[in-house]
Amino acid sequence: MNYDTSHVSDVVIRRLPQYYRHLESLERSGVTRISSKELGAQMGLTASQIRQDINFFGTFGQQGYGYNVRDLKDHLAGILGLNKGYNMIVVGMGSIGHAIVNYQSFKKRGFNFTALFDNAPSLVGRTVSDIEIKNISELKSFLSKNRVDIAAICTPSDAAQDIADTLIEGGVSAIWNFAPVSLNVPSDIALNNVHLTDSLLFLSYKLSHK
Amino acid sequence: MNYDTSHVSDVVIRRLPQYYRHLESLERSGVTRISSKELGAQMGLTASQIRQDINFFGTFGQQGYGYNVRDLKDHLAGILGLNKGYNMIVVGMGSIGHAIVNYQSFKKRGFNFTALFDNAPSLVGRTVSDIEIKNISELKSFLSKNRVDIAAICTPSDAAQDIADTLIEGGVSAIWNFAPVSLNVPSDIALNNVHLTDSLLFLSYKLSHK
Repeated sequence: MNYDTSHVSDVVIRRLPQYYRHLESLERSGVTRISSKELGAQMGLTASQIRQDINFFGTFGQQGYGYNVRDLKDHLAGILGLNKGYNMIVVGMGSIGHAIVNYQSFKKRGFNFTALFDNAPSLVGRTVSDIEIKNISELKSFLSKNRVDIAAICTPSDAAQDIADTLIEGGVSAIWNFAPVSLNVPSDIALNNVHLTDSLLFLSYKLSHK
Repeated sequence: MNYDTSHVSDVVIRRLPQYYRHLESLERSGVTRISSKELGAQMGLTASQIRQDINFFGTFGQQGYGYNVRDLKDHLAGILGLNKGYNMIVVGMGSIGHAIVNYQSFKKRGFNFTALFDNAPSLVGRTVSDIEIKNISELKSFLSKNRVDIAAICTPSDAAQDIADTLIEGGVSAIWNFAPVSLNVPSDIALNNVHLTDSLLFLSYKLSHK
């Protein structure tokens, strides 16, 4: 890529999937081109914010024409690394782990689950979406033999940091953490948290202060 | 409450569950008191940011002593509306809906699932965590007879806005949206989104730009 992305902030990066999702839905509705002004109005952002976000990743769009919806969507797909064929594993196959593996849209976007792990005898050996749940004791050896790009941690809190350490030692460079705990990871590891309880408590706060 | 919270920003509100979670873990480790400086160092925030956040909700902590861990945790529980006994429903009982209902920690924090809805004949009539899945056609009538505080939308994208409209018309004032779509809701409705695909694409971006 011929543009420098080292200075793009996480706030901008978090908006990219929203653009992508919105453009997908415009395309489905048959919209073929859109101005930054219209796109901004639909997404609650200013036209200049949208142009600035997109310009981080090269010149795109045409003065007086706006954006071609499909081209911009494909451009964003490239930026987001969609369809690169990332290998994923899930550690902790409780209900959240099951939900992630069963989530239809990950696979079609190029995220492939290659192994699942748990320590519960009742789960080990069972299959979810045709993938066998392995014993957590096999995690280290699996990592030494297979490339894993992204690991989802869906274990209870008290196990999560140890699992994260094992994953990083085994060469995993992105961690998707669903355990309700803040993980310590080196700065070169990509970490993103989905804290369901925090998210629910935000609503609970809003209800309490109406 | 004798303090004005109308000017507290969502950024601050989103930090409150993190404080709460961290204090819970300190309490479990036997820590009884902590200074704002120590708390800040542990959480990656400055001492003054922590004091400012907490002071939005009345005077708390003592110069030279710091915070009593349990008292501050209980204070935050009150601010967050924990254990108020909120009634929740889930619309869309696919794997995400199942995961939410099975999530252990919601119930013990005072969030009670009172009804589940789906439109799939294969799901209607089945029970999850002892709660029966009702036909979506009963949603309106259920809302007219029962108080619902928070509704989780776990349907496919194309159904989500209609469901949201029905929920709001039926008196629901907080929506927890898991459908991968941006919902339009009136400003007095509390809305929080968990966009799993967006969250995964953040990691995918990071991996692509390493």
